[in-house]
Order: sequence, then C-alpha cells, then structure tokens
Amino acid sequence: MSVTDELLAANTRYAETFSGPLPLPPSRHVAVVACMDARLDVYRALGLAEGEAHVIRNAGGVVTDDEIRSLTISQRLLGTREIVLVHHTDCGMLTFTDEDFRASIEQDCGIRPHWHSEAFPELEDDVRAQRQRILDSPFIPIKDSVRGFVFDVATGRLSEVH
Amino acid sequence: MSVTDELLAANTRYAETFSGPLPLPPSRHVAVVACMDARLDVYRALGLAEGEAHVIRNAGGVVTDDEIRSLTISQRLLGTREIVLVHHTDCGMLTFTDEDFRASIEQDCGIRPHWHSEAFPELEDDVRAQRQRILDSPFIPIKDSVRGFVFDVATGRLSEVH
Repeated sequence: MSVTDELLAANTRYAETFSGPLPLPPSRHVAVVACMDARLDVYRALGLAEGEAHVIRNAGGVVTDDEIRSLTISQRLLGTREIVLVHHTDCGMLTFTDEDFRASIEQDCGIRPHWHSEAFPELEDDVRAQRQRILDSPFIPIKDSVRGFVFDVATGRLSEVH
Repeated sequence: MSVTDELLAANTRYAETFSGPLPLPPSRHVAVVACMDARLDVYRALGLAEGEAHVIRNAGGVVTDDEIRSLTISQRLLGTREIVLVHHTDCGMLTFTDEDFRASIEQDCGIRPHWHSEAFPELEDDVRAQRQRILDSPFIPIKDSVRGFVFDVATGRLSEVH
C-alpha cells in the first residue's frame, strides 16, 4: 500500500464527520505564505479553522512570481487584507547554495534549471527580503499589514521579524 | 486587534503543548500540491501529522516553475518519493478568465502582469494538465506515483482523477 493510498483511507475517515460547504472567501480575510516544511501545521500553529485563511506554501516560504499571483488573486478576487509570512528554524533552504544545487542538477540532467532555488543563508534577513518583494509588487493592492515571522520547530512558537 | 495579532495569540496557546523538534525530512516521503483554498485543511483532510509530508499550496493548486522548484528540492534534497495533487470543487479559479483578470489589473495599475493567472474552466482537465507538467519536468527524478484528486468542499471527500 502506497502512502498515497494511506492518505486516501484517512480521507474517508475525515469525510465521515465533515460538514460543509463553507463560503469560498476566507472569513478572516488573511493570507498566509509559509514554508512547505512538514513540521509546520499552519492551521494548528496559527489557530485557524477551515474556511478562515488562504494558505500559500513553497520551499522556503519565499515570494516569487507565483506567490505574487496567488496573493493578487487572494486580495483582488477573494477579499483578503492581511498577509502573514512564515519562515522557520532548521530550514532546508539554509543548508545549500543556489549555485551548488543548480550545478548538481545540471550534472544529473544535462540541463540547468532556468529558475533559481531561492536558498538563503540567513533566516531573518530572508523574511525581510520576501516581505519587501510583496511591498514592491504593483499588483497587490493592500499592504497595511504584511508581517513576517520565524516559527521555531523546537518550541512551536512564532517570533516576529522587524 | 488585527487578525494577525489574533493568530499570534493562538500560536502562544499552541506552543504551550508543542513538542519538538522533529527531523527535517518528511517521514512519510510524500509531497502534496494543493490549492490555497481556506476550506482545505490539508493535514486533517489527508490524516497527516506534523513532520510527515511537504505541503505546497497556491491559487488553484497548479504547477508553475515555482512548484517545480519546490518539488525538485523536496525530492532531491529531502527524500520525498510520491506526489499528491489536490484541486477542489467550487474553486475561485473557475470563476474568471485569465484575459479578464489581467485586463482588470492593467486598468487598475497601468501594468499588465507578466505572469498568467492560471485560471481554468474545468476541474478534472486541469488536474490532468498539472500532473502532466510534473511528468514533463526534467528536474523531478521520481514520477512513479504522481496522482491527482478533487476535494469536494461539500463532503470533505477526495476523488481521484484518471
């Protein structure tokens, strides 16, 4: 039995007590951009219930064109007004460099990716840099509350980055 | 009090009973790519606990360069081997066209985004298209289990797309 099949079996149990549907727009008008890290259960860590917040996640919790796309749709079409960025301690993105990663892929595949890995050497500086990418985007209309945090995978606690 | 401040207060309560740290690589070796939709609590809907799976999310649950980046890092550096794609019923991406969305942004901001919205007119066809983007990527090494699903926001149930 594959892990995917196990997840499907778990979903059958989940659906037994599920009650829906909720409305499409997030009821708390907030979008979270977080790392894909397995240890960060965004709904639990932020006290979110189903239907309350958009959750955007990727390697690092960074802000590339695709996160600008998601945030633009989130604000312009679905009414969110606050943005929460979450990086975390012990992040894989701290463990390699973009140059090494792309060189190893080129060696393996014969092609160097046209995208960058977005690896970063320091956590808080990168939170600030990703926040700045949002502030600099002409497509995101509401920037009054764009706040960045580091989640500590040892304690479960968020610390704000100023 | 902003919603962000409320989430921080909830995090303080979460941290009180948190036990960590868990290891960095996902223990169930799976990566999920899902829509950012607020009603889809990926950990609960798939029966995932902290530390088990990478969770990648964006508007639509689509596969652009940034998701290829995240999946490449997930497989090459952190050992995941299965990929689960999740779209859902009542998705915002079914409600507009790329052309209208980008034209309205241009009218508002004076600039047309260089990225596309990734809006789609039909759910199952789009799951197949996104799956194909993964299968076509030269950078993702393991493609034995790349399966796509639709989550029903009324019932909580996943249906596989073949």
